[in-house]
Amino acid sequence: MNSYSGGLDTSVILAWLVEQDYEVICYIADIGQEESDWDSVRKKALQIGATKLIVDDLKQEFVEELCWKAVQCNAVYESLYLLGTSLARPVIARGQMRAAAREGCQFVSHGCTGKGNDQGRNDLLDYAAEKGIPVSSTKAKPFSMDDNFAHCSYEAGVPEDPDVTPSEDMWTKTVSPLNSPDAPLDMTIHFEKGTPVKVVTPQQTATDSVELFGLLNRIGGEHGVGRIDIVENRFIGLKSRGCYDSPAMTILRLAHISIEGLVLDGRVISLRNTMSQQWSELVYQGAYFSPERAFLQPSLDYSQQRVNGQVRLRLYKGSVYVLGRSSDEKLYSEDDASMDSLTTFDPLDTTGFITIQAIRLKKYGMQMTEAGVKF
Amino acid sequence: MNSYSGGLDTSVILAWLVEQDYEVICYIADIGQEESDWDSVRKKALQIGATKLIVDDLKQEFVEELCWKAVQCNAVYESLYLLGTSLARPVIARGQMRAAAREGCQFVSHGCTGKGNDQGRNDLLDYAAEKGIPVSSTKAKPFSMDDNFAHCSYEAGVPEDPDVTPSEDMWTKTVSPLNSPDAPLDMTIHFEKGTPVKVVTPQQTATDSVELFGLLNRIGGEHGVGRIDIVENRFIGLKSRGCYDSPAMTILRLAHISIEGLVLDGRVISLRNTMSQQWSELVYQGAYFSPERAFLQPSLDYSQQRVNGQVRLRLYKGSVYVLGRSSDEKLYSEDDASMDSLTTFDPLDTTGFITIQAIRLKKYGMQMTEAGVKF
Amino acid sequence: MNSYSGGLDTSVILAWLVEQDYEVICYIADIGQEESDWDSVRKKALQIGATKLIVDDLKQEFVEELCWKAVQCNAVYESLYLLGTSLARPVIARGQMRAAAREGCQFVSHGCTGKGNDQGRNDLLDYAAEKGIPVSSTKAKPFSMDDNFAHCSYEAGVPEDPDVTPSEDMWTKTVSPLNSPDAPLDMTIHFEKGTPVKVVTPQQTATDSVELFGLLNRIGGEHGVGRIDIVENRFIGLKSRGCYDSPAMTILRLAHISIEGLVLDGRVISLRNTMSQQWSELVYQGAYFSPERAFLQPSLDYSQQRVNGQVRLRLYKGSVYVLGRSSDEKLYSEDDASMDSLTTFDPLDTTGFITIQAIRLKKYGMQMTEAGVKF
Amino acid sequence: MNSYSGGLDTSVILAWLVEQDYEVICYIADIGQEESDWDSVRKKALQIGATKLIVDDLKQEFVEELCWKAVQCNAVYESLYLLGTSLARPVIARGQMRAAAREGCQFVSHGCTGKGNDQGRNDLLDYAAEKGIPVSSTKAKPFSMDDNFAHCSYEAGVPEDPDVTPSEDMWTKTVSPLNSPDAPLDMTIHFEKGTPVKVVTPQQTATDSVELFGLLNRIGGEHGVGRIDIVENRFIGLKSRGCYDSPAMTILRLAHISIEGLVLDGRVISLRNTMSQQWSELVYQGAYFSPERAFLQPSLDYSQQRVNGQVRLRLYKGSVYVLGRSSDEKLYSEDDASMDSLTTFDPLDTTGFITIQAIRLKKYGMQMTEAGVKF
Repeated sequence: MNSYSGGLDTSVILAWLVEQDYEVICYIADIGQEESDWDSVRKKALQIGATKLIVDDLKQEFVEELCWKAVQCNAVYESLYLLGTSLARPVIARGQMRAAAREGCQFVSHGCTGKGNDQGRNDLLDYAAEKGIPVSSTKAKPFSMDDNFAHCSYEAGVPEDPDVTPSEDMWTKTVSPLNSPDAPLDMTIHFEKGTPVKVVTPQQTATDSVELFGLLNRIGGEHGVGRIDIVENRFIGLKSRGCYDSPAMTILRLAHISIEGLVLDGRVISLRNTMSQQWSELVYQGAYFSPERAFLQPSLDYSQQRVNGQVRLRLYKGSVYVLGRSSDEKLYSEDDASMDSLTTFDPLDTTGFITIQAIRLKKYGMQMTEAGVKF
Repeated sequence: MNSYSGGLDTSVILAWLVEQDYEVICYIADIGQEESDWDSVRKKALQIGATKLIVDDLKQEFVEELCWKAVQCNAVYESLYLLGTSLARPVIARGQMRAAAREGCQFVSHGCTGKGNDQGRNDLLDYAAEKGIPVSSTKAKPFSMDDNFAHCSYEAGVPEDPDVTPSEDMWTKTVSPLNSPDAPLDMTIHFEKGTPVKVVTPQQTATDSVELFGLLNRIGGEHGVGRIDIVENRFIGLKSRGCYDSPAMTILRLAHISIEGLVLDGRVISLRNTMSQQWSELVYQGAYFSPERAFLQPSLDYSQQRVNGQVRLRLYKGSVYVLGRSSDEKLYSEDDASMDSLTTFDPLDTTGFITIQAIRLKKYGMQMTEAGVKF
Repeated sequence: MNSYSGGLDTSVILAWLVEQDYEVICYIADIGQEESDWDSVRKKALQIGATKLIVDDLKQEFVEELCWKAVQCNAVYESLYLLGTSLARPVIARGQMRAAAREGCQFVSHGCTGKGNDQGRNDLLDYAAEKGIPVSSTKAKPFSMDDNFAHCSYEAGVPEDPDVTPSEDMWTKTVSPLNSPDAPLDMTIHFEKGTPVKVVTPQQTATDSVELFGLLNRIGGEHGVGRIDIVENRFIGLKSRGCYDSPAMTILRLAHISIEGLVLDGRVISLRNTMSQQWSELVYQGAYFSPERAFLQPSLDYSQQRVNGQVRLRLYKGSVYVLGRSSDEKLYSEDDASMDSLTTFDPLDTTGFITIQAIRLKKYGMQMTEAGVKF
Repeated sequence: MNSYSGGLDTSVILAWLVEQDYEVICYIADIGQEESDWDSVRKKALQIGATKLIVDDLKQEFVEELCWKAVQCNAVYESLYLLGTSLARPVIARGQMRAAAREGCQFVSHGCTGKGNDQGRNDLLDYAAEKGIPVSSTKAKPFSMDDNFAHCSYEAGVPEDPDVTPSEDMWTKTVSPLNSPDAPLDMTIHFEKGTPVKVVTPQQTATDSVELFGLLNRIGGEHGVGRIDIVENRFIGLKSRGCYDSPAMTILRLAHISIEGLVLDGRVISLRNTMSQQWSELVYQGAYFSPERAFLQPSLDYSQQRVNGQVRLRLYKGSVYVLGRSSDEKLYSEDDASMDSLTTFDPLDTTGFITIQAIRLKKYGMQMTEAGVKF
């Protein structure tokens, strides 16, 4: 069973497998990519020699299992990348394995090259031309496997020189901030256990996970929210420039950070942030189905038990702003934080708190001063 | 020696100290706050009873020692707060101690209350009215100690209900993104050893650290860049809403992340990011002058030895975008990352790489499958 | 309700409370301390003025909840201390709170001083003498609250000069290694889910948790196993010398590390070890009942699901040695590890593995060499 | 240039290289291995066909650069393994590269197999027999590359079943604890900047690094100190049983932990311990010459600036015990720690300290209680 998108890589490997006399069933995971003219894709696959094409709708699984887990831990790789491709791969791989088992396939295959995504392009194009493989029948632009609900990745169309700005027409999920509406869009996201359960805009309300995610992508994209341009470090040790647009994930990350600020204990946030970095790196490195990711998950899940509440946000010209947040959980108290009220604790207690903290620091200061160190 | 800003807290404690028959020298650290009518401030201090007022220009020290260190490690607290107040305090405290030593003062004092910033406000206002202390002579708004080069903190003027959006006129360092220019501003920041050394805009170039920082604040502020609205966890265990605008630090953080992406090794980035979180938490908790912060510093400094290059950025309607980055350092290579060239390594090597990585994962998979765990 | 041990501190505070006209019920948690002449203790408490003495048997709770959790994560503080006191305190505090609720007490009290354990001793002795409080009726040595199943802590009897070796007669739970038997004792510990479930020695077998723990203490103590002499860092920032003997915990820690080595994935061990350090520090700092400890627990628990097997050990003259370990879990395979068999993987795969690892390292080497850095 | 030990692996690869018509210079790094009959080794190498044999004395470099760094951070892998092989490899590899450059060699080679150490043994033996390669001319036991100053590794002679205890005659660097002297040996180790600079026993004193290290190996070995039996996780994802004896490193690790306890700040110890784990894992994985290890080093080095003092230890029947420690550094103070003196701080301060710590914990407790969670 061959993982197939209709793009260059997967078409070439399909043709090659057929040439080697394998009987090939093509598998395509629907994880929210823009392409949805499955009939054209099917036609092309059969034309190249596939026995059949299976289109597997994994959108809900993708959103509810992978994307929500990422939202719950504010996942981000190297400060910027929201892991769109990395989140999709485990769902695709598992879906293909399940389908292969169902169909009685003996082998699974895919079109990835050894060097990263879509490498070796010119050789592939030559091969496709030589064998008469239709590689761009459905679209003017090459169809990318890395378009999914969480983002679109433009590695193939990105200028190789990291100092060259990508052309505006590369981006597909986001309008340019410069061309986005002059009026901001205010909205509210409701969270239960760290998971978005409702999105309310002036025009509509969504509660279904896939619908909600799609709505955030649409309104985020209209307001130019979620473009990422990064030089990132691949697992294999190479640096690579990546351009991604991730409207929904960008909005959700800020919203989730903000609701956590209101309801999650500070020491838990600190320990969890360290764990979030580990989780993000593991997922980036293809280790979602690993004992170490599984090990981190129970505590990450536990941390979200009380992350309930709602966040009001504004989308405007490429940015998301927090307007406010509220929750029925009790960790934040206006009384505690207020400067006009001293009912919760005696400010004199801070004297003791500071004095004890200072025991160690005073010793250090004396030691350094004796040693002639100037602060 | 009393740390003095002319604001409510420091005026009240000054009056109280004078009433207790102390001879009080007032100390004010110039760390880039908007206030600079030092004559009015001095007049007020002397009127309350201070012997003299010392204004200490610490702008360069603040920018070059504290702010640059924060930029170098991409410091951020709880995902959002850029530590403006926390970075200023060590410089102020050290400056006051130095001045106290110079002036032969026996004691130092400040106006902070026990509960956080500016607490107990109503009692203070009553006391000030009773004693005839002039508390708002220089400005319509209360003068805040937390206005500095790195940010302005609006804790006192912030709505206590974290769900209420602050009014637009609260912000002093940033124009509203909605009212900012319709034309973006493109600019370039040059880094040497992780430190910004030149900022170039179409209109001007700055190389002096204080001038450069001021320029970024000005153009960032004009374009509405750098507003932060957070519910954060104080060291003492309370949650507190903070509103800050940090134009220069916001721009510099993204720029520095982007130049590091190009030139810093990926494993170093990963280990350093963990250390950055530790550094940020320590500085937030008032532990800049601590053995543990001093312990982290040598490796953080070392990591920046080769962080040289320039980043092109766009400011527009509240956001900063990376347009490109370049460096003479050699870690990134277009050849390596290109999909059309396979000169650097043999893609077959990845087979071995993946096979070895999979030894462990296959065993795990078999173990889970035997145990009936479904992935 | 006053936490009471019959020792100096708790006797003095009891007398003082009675003098203040409080009706005081004394509470004593039986957590395996050597003292068990509860009748004498009760007599003394009543004599000082307590209404009654409650002896609460918490041994099983202490062993199964706290000690097992520590064993499961190989808990240790500052490389040496096995947390005997820190593990006991949460159980005692919770037991006292439950008892106070049952008895309808309005307040709880204890005899701890502000500075650590048993401070201010001379003042207390004077007060006790003056008031005629019986302080050493049950034993020649002062009765210590820090004797429990997990260890005995000798802070009070320890030489203040950390360069002076404690006298041999200080230790109560362990024979001197020099006087321990010349014949080693070999034994086996069986683990299920990271928890010891059976201990087998040539003489006996124990499966009950309290019995098993007691057996390990007894045989460990006979063979001089588990003495710790440390200068540790207290939560309040002071350094303090501690001497502890922890026979059972010492044996269990090595045994558990050894069974984990056989059955737990390496990356999980690495991530978990970091979490173990966090767990140990939290428990040391009195934060067992904290959101952050609760946050760490689910992943720590999860890691132990497959930690099943048995470890053969030798006790001899102060040391524990691993003789062997086995498990029905499948992560370790003699075939894989054997040098005479190459069935599991192709050694050529390691070429690719190393080549890919080296991409990054070669770039680094070239960069350093260009920069004139000598390795 | 071929890395050569005279053992099976390196003899076979030498013969093979000669057969392929390479001119081969053999290189042997003297890193303190027991073997020192270099004339026999040389004779064998020349007999197989080497042009010459270079014996490079790297003992001082090994001890002072690698071993001291490990001692300074209390390096340990998976709680037990003291990294003997991992520490030696960087010194050997660098030595061989330097020698290859000096001799004008075009290639370097070694005898390691792809699977770990000494794999594929039977094939090698057959090949050696067929070609008449002398493989065990110098010793009855196979000569091991992993015998060095830091330890001897017995992977080749270790029972494959991890439940079988190695036979007593496997160990070469340590006497069995059961056969070690009945009289303990007391000794003192002096540290400067975290590095051992003097060892004093009743019989002798050593200050030279190599001599001092050798002395510790000798007396530690005589008293049976330093045997390790572990199932460890290899970098490639396999588990492997390792048996090592490391007398000097075992003694030094405990001594260094003990002097640090006296003079190093507690928060620094905590942060450093996390870094030590990272350092140990990197060195284990062959990444000593990596940017990430280099990144950790400056802070690790910095932490040792004040680690000065001396530790008194006892060796007895397989164990090391701390008898006492002292230092001229001032972090520990008998007055502070004493229970009879309250001069350093007011115990009432701890009330404030605890109250502030409890703000967060009380909120958590109320939240959990409301949620019906039982502690």
